[in-house]
Amino acid sequence: MTASLAAMPSVCQTLLYPRSIALVGASDDVKKTGGRPLQFLRRSGFAGTIYPINPNRAQVQGEQAWPSLAALPQVPDHVFVLSPTETVIDTVRECARLGVPLVTILASGFSESGAEGVQREAELRAIARNSTLRILGPSSLGVVNPHNGLVLTANAAFAEPDVPRGKVFVASHSGSMIGALVSRGKARGVGFAGLVSVGSEVDLSVGEICAATLDDPAIEGYALFLESLRHGDQLQAFAREAARRGKPVIAYKLGRSSAAAEMATTHTGALAGEDDIADAFLKDLGIVRVDMLETLFEVFPLAQKVPLQSHSMAGKRIGVVTTTGGGAAMVVDQLGLRGITVQPVSDATLAKLKAAQVPGSAGRVLDLTLAGTRYEVMKSVLDIMLEAPEFDMVVAVVGSSARFQPDLAVKPIMDSAGHAKPLVTMLVPDAPQALAALTQAGMPCFRTPESCADAIAAVLARRVPHTPGQTVAAAPGMGAALSEAQAYQLLDRLQVPHAPAATFALDGQPGPLPFDFPVVAKVCSPEIPHKTEVGGVVLGIQNPEQLVQAFATLRANLAARAPGVACNEVLVQPMRKGLSEVLLGYRIDPDAGPIIMLAAGGIWAEVMRDRSIRLAPVSVDTAREMIAEVKLLQTVSGLRGKARGDLEALAQAISDLSQLALQPVHGVLEAEVNPLMVMPEGQGVLAVDALVLQAR
Amino acid sequence: MTASLAAMPSVCQTLLYPRSIALVGASDDVKKTGGRPLQFLRRSGFAGTIYPINPNRAQVQGEQAWPSLAALPQVPDHVFVLSPTETVIDTVRECARLGVPLVTILASGFSESGAEGVQREAELRAIARNSTLRILGPSSLGVVNPHNGLVLTANAAFAEPDVPRGKVFVASHSGSMIGALVSRGKARGVGFAGLVSVGSEVDLSVGEICAATLDDPAIEGYALFLESLRHGDQLQAFAREAARRGKPVIAYKLGRSSAAAEMATTHTGALAGEDDIADAFLKDLGIVRVDMLETLFEVFPLAQKVPLQSHSMAGKRIGVVTTTGGGAAMVVDQLGLRGITVQPVSDATLAKLKAAQVPGSAGRVLDLTLAGTRYEVMKSVLDIMLEAPEFDMVVAVVGSSARFQPDLAVKPIMDSAGHAKPLVTMLVPDAPQALAALTQAGMPCFRTPESCADAIAAVLARRVPHTPGQTVAAAPGMGAALSEAQAYQLLDRLQVPHAPAATFALDGQPGPLPFDFPVVAKVCSPEIPHKTEVGGVVLGIQNPEQLVQAFATLRANLAARAPGVACNEVLVQPMRKGLSEVLLGYRIDPDAGPIIMLAAGGIWAEVMRDRSIRLAPVSVDTAREMIAEVKLLQTVSGLRGKARGDLEALAQAISDLSQLALQPVHGVLEAEVNPLMVMPEGQGVLAVDALVLQAR
Repeated sequence: MTASLAAMPSVCQTLLYPRSIALVGASDDVKKTGGRPLQFLRRSGFAGTIYPINPNRAQVQGEQAWPSLAALPQVPDHVFVLSPTETVIDTVRECARLGVPLVTILASGFSESGAEGVQREAELRAIARNSTLRILGPSSLGVVNPHNGLVLTANAAFAEPDVPRGKVFVASHSGSMIGALVSRGKARGVGFAGLVSVGSEVDLSVGEICAATLDDPAIEGYALFLESLRHGDQLQAFAREAARRGKPVIAYKLGRSSAAAEMATTHTGALAGEDDIADAFLKDLGIVRVDMLETLFEVFPLAQKVPLQSHSMAGKRIGVVTTTGGGAAMVVDQLGLRGITVQPVSDATLAKLKAAQVPGSAGRVLDLTLAGTRYEVMKSVLDIMLEAPEFDMVVAVVGSSARFQPDLAVKPIMDSAGHAKPLVTMLVPDAPQALAALTQAGMPCFRTPESCADAIAAVLARRVPHTPGQTVAAAPGMGAALSEAQAYQLLDRLQVPHAPAATFALDGQPGPLPFDFPVVAKVCSPEIPHKTEVGGVVLGIQNPEQLVQAFATLRANLAARAPGVACNEVLVQPMRKGLSEVLLGYRIDPDAGPIIMLAAGGIWAEVMRDRSIRLAPVSVDTAREMIAEVKLLQTVSGLRGKARGDLEALAQAISDLSQLALQPVHGVLEAEVNPLMVMPEGQGVLAVDALVLQAR
Repeated sequence: MTASLAAMPSVCQTLLYPRSIALVGASDDVKKTGGRPLQFLRRSGFAGTIYPINPNRAQVQGEQAWPSLAALPQVPDHVFVLSPTETVIDTVRECARLGVPLVTILASGFSESGAEGVQREAELRAIARNSTLRILGPSSLGVVNPHNGLVLTANAAFAEPDVPRGKVFVASHSGSMIGALVSRGKARGVGFAGLVSVGSEVDLSVGEICAATLDDPAIEGYALFLESLRHGDQLQAFAREAARRGKPVIAYKLGRSSAAAEMATTHTGALAGEDDIADAFLKDLGIVRVDMLETLFEVFPLAQKVPLQSHSMAGKRIGVVTTTGGGAAMVVDQLGLRGITVQPVSDATLAKLKAAQVPGSAGRVLDLTLAGTRYEVMKSVLDIMLEAPEFDMVVAVVGSSARFQPDLAVKPIMDSAGHAKPLVTMLVPDAPQALAALTQAGMPCFRTPESCADAIAAVLARRVPHTPGQTVAAAPGMGAALSEAQAYQLLDRLQVPHAPAATFALDGQPGPLPFDFPVVAKVCSPEIPHKTEVGGVVLGIQNPEQLVQAFATLRANLAARAPGVACNEVLVQPMRKGLSEVLLGYRIDPDAGPIIMLAAGGIWAEVMRDRSIRLAPVSVDTAREMIAEVKLLQTVSGLRGKARGDLEALAQAISDLSQLALQPVHGVLEAEVNPLMVMPEGQGVLAVDALVLQAR
């Protein structure tokens, strides 16, 4: 079996470089979906062998047709099944039996459409599991490789010949978008090294497909059109390896608004997660997540020029030079909206500019309007700015000359391509020739201020994927809750501080307390994860008499509101009030894997999504970044002379809790400390409640 | 004087339809800035008389040159001064003396560049004030009217012939952007009915220029490129009149980020206001404020189709039909990010679709993928959706067929143009011909999901300008503060509730209180607007003895921290705690005029800009909208069973305070109630501090 596997062609080969293809259900009518692949493959001059399969015809589109897969003179590398949903399972089973390495399924009607579809999908999975066959789809519109004429798709958009060739491989959940991407890329002078419509990923996922192509030297980067993070583990493995090899991965992901997230769910049958978790996932894996469709094409040269080499890309310093004040202001504005502040020219650089007799006016932006637009001026300014230590990146915003006289301001940019520092061009007028020339030269260039800023922000928002030891994986099924007292034992092991606590029997009397009044008394049971809902908390207990009374109250409440629920203990804690309250949560997300979240607590949490998320585990440094992202915590950061909270202790606690991701022994699915009190500087943090779910 | 004014041609005439033009400083060298206007005017076939003026040459570019304005055989309608800064004043004075109606100044070097420039600008203002001459600029690149070949500009971008003709008039603070707008408009198939570079507006402002053109039948709408809200009063008058006449006004305004606001300031010498005030100003005047540059060209047909007729445009219901699920999801996502939720098809409409045998799948979006892309299907779906009462607007998202077979899905859209309900098209592939055809037909159409959503959101965010009685104008100079006790008298007159208060002499003893302890004691003086800074507040006073002690404390603090500051009174108030604290502020903004602001109070205000602004005065209805926009107030809106604050009383208080805008008798420049306590439902609101500034 191992031997036969080794002899099997790789997924990359069968997907992008098949030597032979069978088209099951190939139609004689080129206007029908089933007729397109053969027509497209012939038109694009694909050199491999093509077997149209149609039991009802001797010929299809003038070529010999074959009655079945079994009748073929060889086992094809790739079978594209164009026939209706009902016939798919039989065909796929036949593929497995014959030893076909890859089958692509066009039909829909699987798990997105009811019980029967779910059953069909389960059968497909079983076939893949029990054979060497790999499956692309269902609902896949196919695969295109512009470099070898492989236009193996039923997407009508490929009726147009000449798919533009380039360096970027595209994987898309949406099949129809593949055609739109090609036309837009073509218009923008951008080509592709392959495009695949992944469909509903019953077997091959976006991550696995992309990973399989990492060795292809024609592919220098990836653009993903994602509807969800299905198979996040495979996407994660791919992204880590791509980052290691310096191949940029760019993603446009739907579902930023809740309405679209819901749509993606119904559209594909996948569960849509919360977008900020997806955002943290993508950025932590070094993926360039763009917000605008156009940026998906435009950002690659910039991503290539700004490698993932330093820990934090944020805080990179941008210098701007322009021949149009109004145009540059648009770019500065758009960058500012994304939290990127343009850096003014330093005095040392100003002196150099003066020495070079550049009559620019330097505020936040070096404005050459007064200098007139001339090659020599622009070139010497670019040379000086690209050398200036105060800038990590230079943006040149070019006005009308870009359209009429590209020699004046665009040529000096092109002549500066060799510099190590990234040089970005934004063209303010419509300047198709300059744009094409810059694009052709592989230089980062943009046609709107919004996509320019989106690209820069997305490239800088990437984080270098840390390579943890193996993190824990999601366990199937629901977890079992721990009691609050048990949860504190877990926090003790993780060194996350909590308020002192004493437990007593619920039906007994409280003993002496190891801490002072006032205290709080809470029912303590794994069966009651949400204590307040059953009246299980008594606050502000001032003395032993009130404490006795509190026990009686808790017993009465439980009897009335949770009769029969097992609860033997009461947990007593001193009342503690911090400068600020946060929620610190760890969980194994079904898509993203282990994540750690820091969120504003109390009233803020109700109306603001004021939170920061990372893949777990995180270092103390990363935890500090998370703290900086939660707005509430600015109120305890020493702002305007106010008391500073112990944010260092908070950072340590975040990092400590996140270590659960490396400790499968605990079997923790979810651990939520809420609230975690942030005490004044030097006094640490204190958990005053915690909920933990463990795998059963 | 009146007679001669009446005989003067209007600003619209001299600006867009001059019969004669003089070019002062016209150069023989067409490559020089001073040579361009003559060349451009001749190339574009301008039919009026042109007088090149150059005292050093008998001929300029082969035409007779004149030695001076005085030597001309007539007084020209429009003089364009191309000569250097130093000579401008003399030329302008000569224009005034000769009775020239309009002069445009190209040179910069006025108030944006130091004391000498400020002096020059003052002289220009004086000339304009004391004559019938109107001034455009300085720093104006000129005026273009594509309809009559008036290319009266020094902007090199107009070297290109054939400025596209259209219906929209452009006014821009940035002169260089005019060229970029024309090239982008041309590429997008959009033309213009005039473009003016307003420069630094020493006399003619954006508002006055646009208002002057409102009678021009060639102009059906306005696009403004703004760096600030200078001369907000004139912009306001224009926008109100444009709204009344149904001519849409569209604005792209810089300064959304603080960095760009600062840039606009240094660039033009204007003071940049806060962007959310500008945003409220624009929207309250019915102006379509777009966020993206491309939307500035694309939104006009939609703005024309969605007139400002109802009070609130928000809450309009959008239906989406598509031939590409992925493409539609992008649009839904972008709309969702802008707070616009796409409406699903109703059961009644679904029944109609079924009767019409449309095999679409209807979730949030009507997806015709399964139906195949056919004219009949698309047309009948559009007919049904455009008639459906659940939609106020229909968006058609068209996939690859738009590029290859526009007859299938784009033609039915064009054939539905006659419907009263707005029909918006978003083309997912690059489809230049379909885009051009739709644009040519005047139908709203977009080439990116972002600009499509930006346009829809911007059009719906407009508010019908209410026409108040004359509101108060900004008074020059600083205001004088009232004491807190005096401020409460003002609130009493406005019927804004405040906590009861008693005043006593600071150097005496407190008398009996008309309310219960605990109380707060505060120094009360117009000289001490910020009481806590001088230790002028004692909180939590429980009894008469503590109150006596508090008076002593206040005296001691004042002596130590504000020696010599006049303060005779102490104001005593009961301690009141609301469900929530807000800041309610009224002020006369130098740009926007009277505004009313509702903001989150307390800790929120420090780290979040959680506030809502409107032009004052506002109705109670509008005040309710403002309340809905402040996130903090969601916590007292009855969310999850929590106590509801008295939001009706709050709405009334907002409206009441805003009436200051109609009451010049009070002379109030600024009135800030902070905090205003929002009490539980039925218990009203209570001001517990207030600061009022009155004109001196």
